[in-house]
Amino acid sequence: MKPLKERTSIRNEENTGTTSGLCEGYIQTNMVTLPKAYAFDFLLFCMRNPKPCPLVEVMEAGQTEPKVAEADIRTDLPRYRIYRDGKFSEEVLNISDVWQDDFVTFLIGCSFTFEKALLDGGIPLFHQQQKKVVPMFDTTIPLEPAGIFKGNMVVSMRAIPNDLVDQALAISERFEQSHGSPVHIGDPEEIGIKDLENPDYGEAVEFDAAEATPVFWACGVTPQNAALQAKPPIMITHAPGHMLITDQMDPNYDNG
Amino acid sequence: MKPLKERTSIRNEENTGTTSGLCEGYIQTNMVTLPKAYAFDFLLFCMRNPKPCPLVEVMEAGQTEPKVAEADIRTDLPRYRIYRDGKFSEEVLNISDVWQDDFVTFLIGCSFTFEKALLDGGIPLFHQQQKKVVPMFDTTIPLEPAGIFKGNMVVSMRAIPNDLVDQALAISERFEQSHGSPVHIGDPEEIGIKDLENPDYGEAVEFDAAEATPVFWACGVTPQNAALQAKPPIMITHAPGHMLITDQMDPNYDNG
Repeated sequence: MKPLKERTSIRNEENTGTTSGLCEGYIQTNMVTLPKAYAFDFLLFCMRNPKPCPLVEVMEAGQTEPKVAEADIRTDLPRYRIYRDGKFSEEVLNISDVWQDDFVTFLIGCSFTFEKALLDGGIPLFHQQQKKVVPMFDTTIPLEPAGIFKGNMVVSMRAIPNDLVDQALAISERFEQSHGSPVHIGDPEEIGIKDLENPDYGEAVEFDAAEATPVFWACGVTPQNAALQAKPPIMITHAPGHMLITDQMDPNYDNG
Repeated sequence: MKPLKERTSIRNEENTGTTSGLCEGYIQTNMVTLPKAYAFDFLLFCMRNPKPCPLVEVMEAGQTEPKVAEADIRTDLPRYRIYRDGKFSEEVLNISDVWQDDFVTFLIGCSFTFEKALLDGGIPLFHQQQKKVVPMFDTTIPLEPAGIFKGNMVVSMRAIPNDLVDQALAISERFEQSHGSPVHIGDPEEIGIKDLENPDYGEAVEFDAAEATPVFWACGVTPQNAALQAKPPIMITHAPGHMLITDQMDPNYDNG
């Protein structure tokens, strides 16, 4: 299905599920919406930490229609999460009722875009095979702070068959707006991860440690996490896995 | 002289003149300082218009020491201009007295960095030979607006001997943080410039129109100009030609 048709179905609340696997080859994005008073610090934070926070678009205060999609940011994602004072408040299907004219929305690259390219490159994705949400972990990799925003990087982990690690690296590094190349390959403890079977977000995935290597990519949960620690009075994000589908094809995506 | 020594002399007001030609090979920057309330819009404006507004560094609210130089932004430029409500108010040797804790400073690339590379590449710079400030012009090239900031691009003009235009292009395009490749080559009227002998800023430069071609680069006056049109209650910039000398060598600069 084309993005506009898919988003219309989402807007009409006929589709309220994950966008994973929808509109292949089109860029999907994470969303973070904050009052303008926090927008400068958060923009600076993203610029200083481009691996976990690759900016696809920064919208103006009050703007509801992005450039990357003929969409209304208040209705065209399947699910949103509202946080108040840094705490989860509620999950909703649209944010029309809580919208404020001073809201600034950041659209941030997500890894869905390169996962399809990995698959097409012959790289198995165990979490997809096992129908799990990709496992994500807090790390000890420090971020460069900006204003009130600081913290450590959150990473997603995909176990890659040993002989395909180089290939996975080569494919993912082309997708700069989707976190690019891995931030770590191998021993999880080196980046402060104690137990791969207990992810901080998402679900644990099974793999044979003799035949596959854990590979860690910077994750779009990072900016959410940093923003929550900063405890803004209100912040809205997409619900995990429920992204904005844009009208833009990833230029690195190979349709052939 | 090394940058730190030069800046100390500037801080002590022993040197209050132009930084043109000082500390060759080190990056110099334009400076724009605004209250934080305007910082998000201005940062977005720079991101959307990277040719005229190449960001070298964005400092945090109240921060006085940048990362690119062991400097105090309030004292280590030779001259500053203070604008109030979009109008020039005064030129001063330091801004310690007017500094506010909510000031955000933007350091923006300047063309001094690539002019030396042009000279080293065998390209004569007529404005330097004639001891003139490079001529700058308002154009009809529209900028992408952001919040309250909008306007047209300001360009600097260097007439280049016809057989050296390609060479000038090849050299300047390596200096992305100093406006990069030209935005226009040839007929000034195509970008709305009526009379090369009446620049809007700087001074007219003489050249033989049969032997040299006018080449136009995006200019660091652009963001100042856009900011002035937005009429913030207070804004501070370097005085033209009186830049911040950083401690960073331009990686593209050839010392050999």
